[in-house]
This record gives sequence, C-alpha cells and structure tokens, in this order.
Amino acid sequence: MQVNIPLKQTVDNSYDITIDTIKKVHFDKKVAIVTNPKVAGLHLAYFLSKISAKELYIITVPDGEEYKNQDSVDLILESLFNHRFNRKSMLIAFGGGVIGDMTGYTASIYQRGIDFVQVPTTLLSQVDASVGGKTGINNSYGKNLIGAFHQPKAVYIDPHFLSTLPKREFGAGVAEIIKMAVTFNRNFFDFLETADLHDKEVLQEAIKQAVQTKADVVAKDEKEHGLRAALNYGHTFGHVIENETKYKTYLHGEAVAIGMVMANEVAVAMNLMIPQEAQRVKELLQKYDLPTSYTIEDVNSFYETFFLDKKSLDASVTFILPVGIGGVKITDEVDKELILSVLRKFGNN
Amino acid sequence: MQVNIPLKQTVDNSYDITIDTIKKVHFDKKVAIVTNPKVAGLHLAYFLSKISAKELYIITVPDGEEYKNQDSVDLILESLFNHRFNRKSMLIAFGGGVIGDMTGYTASIYQRGIDFVQVPTTLLSQVDASVGGKTGINNSYGKNLIGAFHQPKAVYIDPHFLSTLPKREFGAGVAEIIKMAVTFNRNFFDFLETADLHDKEVLQEAIKQAVQTKADVVAKDEKEHGLRAALNYGHTFGHVIENETKYKTYLHGEAVAIGMVMANEVAVAMNLMIPQEAQRVKELLQKYDLPTSYTIEDVNSFYETFFLDKKSLDASVTFILPVGIGGVKITDEVDKELILSVLRKFGNN
Repeated sequence: MQVNIPLKQTVDNSYDITIDTIKKVHFDKKVAIVTNPKVAGLHLAYFLSKISAKELYIITVPDGEEYKNQDSVDLILESLFNHRFNRKSMLIAFGGGVIGDMTGYTASIYQRGIDFVQVPTTLLSQVDASVGGKTGINNSYGKNLIGAFHQPKAVYIDPHFLSTLPKREFGAGVAEIIKMAVTFNRNFFDFLETADLHDKEVLQEAIKQAVQTKADVVAKDEKEHGLRAALNYGHTFGHVIENETKYKTYLHGEAVAIGMVMANEVAVAMNLMIPQEAQRVKELLQKYDLPTSYTIEDVNSFYETFFLDKKSLDASVTFILPVGIGGVKITDEVDKELILSVLRKFGNN
Repeated sequence: MQVNIPLKQTVDNSYDITIDTIKKVHFDKKVAIVTNPKVAGLHLAYFLSKISAKELYIITVPDGEEYKNQDSVDLILESLFNHRFNRKSMLIAFGGGVIGDMTGYTASIYQRGIDFVQVPTTLLSQVDASVGGKTGINNSYGKNLIGAFHQPKAVYIDPHFLSTLPKREFGAGVAEIIKMAVTFNRNFFDFLETADLHDKEVLQEAIKQAVQTKADVVAKDEKEHGLRAALNYGHTFGHVIENETKYKTYLHGEAVAIGMVMANEVAVAMNLMIPQEAQRVKELLQKYDLPTSYTIEDVNSFYETFFLDKKSLDASVTFILPVGIGGVKITDEVDKELILSVLRKFGNN
C-alpha cells in the first residue's frame, strides 16, 4: 500500500534589496549582529545608529576566508544557544561575503532555520554574495562544500560602507560587476566602458544593475540547476589560481578577473567571441587595475586542479564561456586539448 | 533604490511512502547507505538483495542516540567527500530514527543539499520520524537543536524489518501510533482498542493509518508554524522524563507514553477531556506494556526542565492537550499552578 505526501506548495521567498543609506529600523525580537573585529571597528557605531532591537547581541568572529569554517559556525551557534535564541529570533550578517555566507548558513541550521538579513559592507558582497541565498562554509576538501540555500529576508546595501574600502578590494568588487555585464547585459557593459565607478552616483547605478541582473538569474534558477551556473564565469579558472597561490596572492575578485580573461581565450578559440571583444573585456578590467595575466607553471597540474573544485566532483568540468559580450554558454563539453592549448599561452613551458 | 527578488514559486516536494515488501530497485548514480552495525548485521544482506546502484557505498556510524551528533555527521561527510559524491548523488537512511534524522540532515547540507531516501527499520521510525522531513542532530544544549527541513524523495516501509524488533522497541513504536489516533482520529483509536497489532496485517493497516495521519498534518503545515506541533503530544512531558533519567531508563516512545498520560491529566483538569477518556488511553498504552506512571522527585525542578527543551527557548512552554479522543489543542497559556498540581499527583512529596 502507498501513502502520498502532497507537498506541492507555493512558497514565497521574495525579498527586497535596498540600495541606499539605511533607514532607521527597529526589530521587536531577539537579534544578533554577526560581524568581525575589522568591520566592527570601522562601521558598527554607524550601523547601531540605524538598527535597534528588543534584545540586541553582537557576535564577533575572526576576520578572513580561513575562518569561514565549522569552528566559526560553532562559535555563533554557541552564542545563540547561550542567549536562548528561538525560532522567531533573527541574525544580521554585517560584513563581507565570508560573514554573509557563514551567518546565512548558521541561520539555516539553527533550530531548522531562522530568519536572517544581509548587510554587506564590501563592494564584492554587495553586488554578488549577499544576493541569492547561497550560504556555506569551507572545509579541507574545498570552498562552500557544506551549505544550504537559505534566502535572506532583506538585503540592505548602503554605499556608506564603501568609503573605507581599500583600492584593491574595490577593484575586486568591480570584477564581479563586469562579470554580470559580460555574461548577461551588453548595454550594461557599454555603460561600464564609459562610466567612472569612482563617482558615487555612477557606482550606485552600477550596483543596482549588477544586483538586478543577478536577481533575474536567481529568480529563474534559484538552486542552480542550469542558468545560475553562468554566474560562475571566470570562477572555474579563478578557483584554480586561488588554489595554486594558496589564497594569498589574489583577492577572490582578482582571481576571477584573470579567470575571465582565460575563459575568454577559450571562447575565442571556440569562435564564440571575437578577439576584439576579449580585448575590450581585458581593457575594462585593467581600467580598475585588475590583474589580467598569470604565469602557469605546470599546465597539466593546472588542468587537474579543475577536478578538485566543487562543481567538478563528478568527472566533468563545467565551463562558462561568453558568447560575444552579453551572452553566455554553459558547457561541460570542451575538448581537453583545446583547454590545454589555451593554458599553454599562459604557461612558461 | 530598490530591487526585488521575486521568489514566489511552486515547489513540489511531494513523495510516496510505500508500506510493503521492498521491490527490487536500481539507482543509476552514486548511492551511500548510511546505517549502524546492529542494523547492518541483522538486515543489510536482505536490503542489498533489493537495492543496487551504479556505485554503492556503505557508511556505518555508531549505534545510539548519544551518537546523533556533529561527530557522526562529520564521519558521513568525510566519506562522501572522499568518494567524490556530487550534487546528483544520493543517500539512503537505513535504520531507526537516529539514522534517519542524521542522514537527512547530512543530505541537506552536503553541497547545499542532495537527495535522500528513508528506509526505516524500527516501528517508531516507520510511523513517525521517517515521514515529514524533519532532520537534525543533538548537542550539549538539547535534542534536534541543529537541523533542517529536508524532505526525502521516497520512504520505503518494509514490515520485514520488524521481525527482529525487541518487544520494548515494538511497544515504543505503538506509543507513537496511539499518539496519532488520540490527537487526530477517533475512529483509528477505536480500531486500535479492538485490534491486535501483533497480527502482521493488522499492524500494516495501523502503520498505514498512522502515516496517513501524519502525512495530512505535514501537508498542511510542513514547517511547524501551527498544527504540526500537535504531533508533539506527550513530548513536552516526555522530554523532561528522558532528561531526568538521562535517556537510560526509557525508550523515547516509552517516555512519550508517560508524557501522554501526564498531558491527559492536564486536559482533564482543564475539562478538555473526561476522566474515562484518559483512562481509555492509559489502558490502550498498558495493553502494549507501555509505562504509564513515573515518580517525580522534585516537582519544581521537573517544571523548570520544560524550559530547557527546544520548543521552549522562549519563555513559554507549549502544551499539546487532547480534546476528548481525536481532537487536540495547542496552547502556551496553561496556568503554572495547574501544571504543578498535576505534577504533584506524580510526585512523592
């Protein structure tokens, strides 16, 4: 005999992303702001002038990608249990992508899931990580291998926080903005070529367009069964570069910038893109002092490292290749020899 | 400015629960069966005569509620990473409720969620834990405090496994069957009063009715915003009893049996149930040699332990009280003095 559990339901996980100076807001519940000492030192006073709650806790975790792990999650959980947070309590992720991913993941597993809000403080997290509900932590096997899809209830993007952002981190964020434009929006790319993102209003417009682009993609494919993978443009190569340089030489966005240049070379070799378009992307990256070259010591080892990457735990590697500017092709059928020949252009052997 | 992420979607998490001898089935993917040495020793050969896969792994975790923790989850994850499980791979929970909850939770966080199937081998897990998608682990703060809602893709309930079930574990499962009847289905309760669950066909019918009852409740309230809490009938008191006896004296279902008797006393004191109905429930529990009495050493300490329980991390305790037989009231507004006076009936002071 058989019993069916009918769970075909309309689930509304919609939320708003506000790109503006944060308005004063009060939460009538227990709230914990999860942040790191660096962000707290720079911006917590400002943030606390905007946010209040019935009970407000600040949980500080160490700063850096190397702390995006189970130990930090345990530290947050410990604090939530000690303060008797319940299923109606809420977390606020206040920091960059590491804080956002970890806080979201913790919210997803605490008592089978509680609400959280994203307040990203870096350009990179404002235009990318804070939007879309991907949460997770790293472990010895790789990045983001443990995690959940858990959408925030709201995202507040306040340009105020960018005033203290170091130049390199600003560039790393611009790389992800360029990524969105190349893969999905030619007009946006044209805009970026003539715009100066150091202008505050221009930057705000670019953030909005990047976020809007990502929102469209996420709405179509929340759990990355297809299209959403296109947001990994530059990341297949970028992750290998980060891995080879032990995450010390490049910021994530910088590695992605180089990765985009490499993906473009593959696209050119496959006649998906003309060399002039690849050149335009490279020049736009260089305009923000992003790295566009990298010396591959060992082409075969570089190739094999693709398979250590999460999306490659099966035997194939997924490549995200631009189709001209404003288009994208997701494929795991790229000839190994073709990839190796492109890698050799970056090699010194 | 504002961007909205529209995520109002129709999500279909429906699945079938088959109550029958398992048919032969092949999965064309990587599959890991998560089990414990006891279940493996008794039933793995039988199960493997039914299940095959493109690649099949067996992951064995220690047996017992005390191992339903992060260490066991780490052990499972380690194995999945070592064998390069990907997002299309699948887990099968093969064992009782502990195995089911842990395996489901691990599936929910592995690479942001992979599929899993429940094959419960105890009566308790067949009628309760395997259905409904609640997954989780315990920690030093309490039971199931870390977890996720992650629905299985299918549940296979094979009565074959019950042939080796010790008498006490059988009774513990019957307690949860009685729970469903008292709270939601008077006809089912009448049936149970006259039926003999030691008869294989009668048992199969009772399992079906219990599962159907739970399926109806879960379909109405998957994430326990309201009605689903009624399934915790007997558990508010039961958890305290388990806690006081350090999980050594009673099986979970046995503690719930006593908890139901206590909840009934509260219901009688509040005129929700007449004493004769409470007596009928008690006699049905006793028919399967379930405990129905418990000596409370310290009434105040017992009361305070309510607040250590998960559903009580806020300042109120939720009581699930039967309304006659076949009805239920969920309330956190029960007078403390009334509760204490009922507890004193079980006390020795």
